[in-house]
Amino acid sequence: MSVEKRFVEHITDREEDFSRWYTDVVLKAELADYAPVRGCMVIRPYGYAIWERVQAALDLRIKATGHRNAYFPLFIPESFLSKEAEHVEGFAPEVAWITQGGSDVLEERLAVRPTSETVICTMYAKWIQSWRDLPVLINQWANVVRWEKVTRPFLRTTEFLWQEGHTAHASEAEAREETLRMLEVYREFVETELAIPVIAGLKSPAERFAGAQDTYSIEAMMADGRALQAGTSHFLGQHFARVFDITFLDRDGERKFVYQTSWGVSTRLIGGLVMVHGDASGLIIPPRVAPVEVVVVPIYRSTEEKEAVARFVAEMQPGLCGELRVEFDWREEYTPGYKFADWELRGVPLRLEVGPRDVRNGQVVLVRRDNRAKTVVPKEGVAAAVRDMLVTIQQALFDRALAFREANSQELVRLANFQEMMSEQRGFVHAQWCGDPACEAALKELTAATIRNLPLDAAAPDGTCIYCGKPATCRVVLAKAY
Amino acid sequence: MSVEKRFVEHITDREEDFSRWYTDVVLKAELADYAPVRGCMVIRPYGYAIWERVQAALDLRIKATGHRNAYFPLFIPESFLSKEAEHVEGFAPEVAWITQGGSDVLEERLAVRPTSETVICTMYAKWIQSWRDLPVLINQWANVVRWEKVTRPFLRTTEFLWQEGHTAHASEAEAREETLRMLEVYREFVETELAIPVIAGLKSPAERFAGAQDTYSIEAMMADGRALQAGTSHFLGQHFARVFDITFLDRDGERKFVYQTSWGVSTRLIGGLVMVHGDASGLIIPPRVAPVEVVVVPIYRSTEEKEAVARFVAEMQPGLCGELRVEFDWREEYTPGYKFADWELRGVPLRLEVGPRDVRNGQVVLVRRDNRAKTVVPKEGVAAAVRDMLVTIQQALFDRALAFREANSQELVRLANFQEMMSEQRGFVHAQWCGDPACEAALKELTAATIRNLPLDAAAPDGTCIYCGKPATCRVVLAKAY
Repeated sequence: MSVEKRFVEHITDREEDFSRWYTDVVLKAELADYAPVRGCMVIRPYGYAIWERVQAALDLRIKATGHRNAYFPLFIPESFLSKEAEHVEGFAPEVAWITQGGSDVLEERLAVRPTSETVICTMYAKWIQSWRDLPVLINQWANVVRWEKVTRPFLRTTEFLWQEGHTAHASEAEAREETLRMLEVYREFVETELAIPVIAGLKSPAERFAGAQDTYSIEAMMADGRALQAGTSHFLGQHFARVFDITFLDRDGERKFVYQTSWGVSTRLIGGLVMVHGDASGLIIPPRVAPVEVVVVPIYRSTEEKEAVARFVAEMQPGLCGELRVEFDWREEYTPGYKFADWELRGVPLRLEVGPRDVRNGQVVLVRRDNRAKTVVPKEGVAAAVRDMLVTIQQALFDRALAFREANSQELVRLANFQEMMSEQRGFVHAQWCGDPACEAALKELTAATIRNLPLDAAAPDGTCIYCGKPATCRVVLAKAY
Repeated sequence: MSVEKRFVEHITDREEDFSRWYTDVVLKAELADYAPVRGCMVIRPYGYAIWERVQAALDLRIKATGHRNAYFPLFIPESFLSKEAEHVEGFAPEVAWITQGGSDVLEERLAVRPTSETVICTMYAKWIQSWRDLPVLINQWANVVRWEKVTRPFLRTTEFLWQEGHTAHASEAEAREETLRMLEVYREFVETELAIPVIAGLKSPAERFAGAQDTYSIEAMMADGRALQAGTSHFLGQHFARVFDITFLDRDGERKFVYQTSWGVSTRLIGGLVMVHGDASGLIIPPRVAPVEVVVVPIYRSTEEKEAVARFVAEMQPGLCGELRVEFDWREEYTPGYKFADWELRGVPLRLEVGPRDVRNGQVVLVRRDNRAKTVVPKEGVAAAVRDMLVTIQQALFDRALAFREANSQELVRLANFQEMMSEQRGFVHAQWCGDPACEAALKELTAATIRNLPLDAAAPDGTCIYCGKPATCRVVLAKAY
């Protein structure tokens, strides 16, 4: 017990300083480390294993909806980036520039891609000729770079990993459908795999992706009540098609511009997972994306006991390892108490303890990471019991996060209440808005909260703008955000 | 037939101009396209699908040998790159440099990683403290950049994709064992999955990786008789450990430097696959890495025939799709002849034809891509027949490549014969060497061929150096190389 306590004392109190708690957990659980390059991180094997599971689960969905992966160059000539006026205005301030290659000073600077619309559009202009070539449904898994002033591991780093989908369609309707299809893929994926409830909605014009006609997002509530934008899907209209001259000969013999979409999620999701599910002891990883679903910790004092436990574990092993991601912690240099704390810090969803008494009784003890509930299970049914319990934990994590969000959300109609809430409490505010960007800016100025999005499932507005009192045109969700 | 002929005419004759044939196939089969950035390529979905299969097959082997994936930053401060003298000398001439981030001019230039030893060593120095932390067995899948003067898709591009393993060990013996273990993983992987026979061996000192103590490679023969270095594994000794101060407290209480290895293969393998197996009609992809293993081409004239064929194919579909990567080509706008040529160009290993006569006879026609052999197979056993035939094709491709290599390899002892061969014929030369770098340089000057490696399975030398006539210290394989 004392070892466990000592271990946990190294983690900052979550209620006291959420931000430091976050950094402590990320570093101590060995998800990531600071790199010796400004604003960059190293994703360590344990963190990368989560990313691999996130990638696999999302890639399956991206392919099931008809997309194929490809790879486009890291470098983008400055002139390409500059073609779409809003796009360059949005991204130029945070671009890393290559000015020299080997011993040659370049005639034109190359941007390290902050996003790939411009280079991909250049290729699409070449590849797309006829309606037969449409739709083009391509995704890319890649690193991107944005020269950020303030950075934090996973949440905002100079370099990060993501996927970016880029599609081209013959009609506006089809492109709009695609935009919402991928938003829904993200919603279902984040809720199912990461057990994070999200609000899917339309961004206000001020928060649109640079160059998009409409931007949609999914927004999640972190345990400190702030919002994290967890994914975006953009309807680009014909903005890029006109600038990059992406046209096709339609069935009617006319040459037309394509309609496009783009959409992405990033390693930021791992930050979200930490901030939604973690607790005072460290990480809690939802079973479906956990690199280790269950850790077996043997308990013994003597060599004799160790041998008995080892025989018992060996008998269970085939059943466990067949379908589950299991780790067996036979480290000699640590006590069981240390191991418990270590695996709790790493957020392994289920611990399986086996001691001499368990061997005698033909049983094991399962301990849930999310609520520490202990269950004694007969050895025979252990694999099935573990599987069931992992499903239960996955659901419990989602339910808990949803309950937390509901408990920290309120519907407000008066500005004074909104100001009060944002200065004293945490959470989301549902309100109505007239649609005027001036009101949006004033709200931000007043409360530091921003309009996260216009939820897709909101009812029609029936009241007045929370800021100006004029008739509302939509319902919005507001929060302070990462 | 005329359509098919027209199609193939677009590909340059392989015997006439191998290099143009290669580029034609890569572009026309839509493996890759030139990017609008100097020396960069776009890997198109079909090419990327091969890379995904290569990645999956190799990643499995990398993990089965105890390694875990991680991700290190793209940018490396110039001072890091400069720490190891040989390393910087080797890589600095081909580095792309970041000098500006957003609106800030950087105080220190950042290299876009040409390889990651230096940044990874910096982290290892931090992570490794005790013998308990060893070995560290980490791999990374990443993009790297080398500012090459002359580039060709897959074979040599400014940016390419690869994996780089980086390990640290307590003893020299263990690190040497790791170096050879990963070389063997590469050999088995390339021979099994890509059906490319390779020669595993030690590089001569002149051809070592910049900073390594020993470099090993696997070398494959392309269809023009030139060698392609298909993978390398480096024993780094303590060179980097001393420079980056990577030490550990050993069991005996002493602080020691670690021994390291690094090893990598890249998207270059796809270029190798094209050049080993392709023919006058285009690509031939070994079944194990083929995005599409079998393509079903329906043949019909009337709507009635089409419906009968469609019913027949629908009945086969569940059996085929369960375990195989199948494409059904129901495109209306192309004739069967066009489709045959199209899928041959793309190198799909097996074609399954179904026409009205096949429907009547309850059979299908299987056509092998590698030798065009046709087999009539009853509908009932079609999935099993396809699976068997894919195994046969995989082996046949390997056997053919091996036979080609053997037919184009000779053992030579006289310099005059070597000169003559390299000027008139293609292929590998097995010879003996005294070990003097001066002889190696002279051979290169004289013939444009280089020592590819010192094959691991070679017998002890028993003759004289092919250049100087002094007693030989080793056997080598020489070739012109990509």
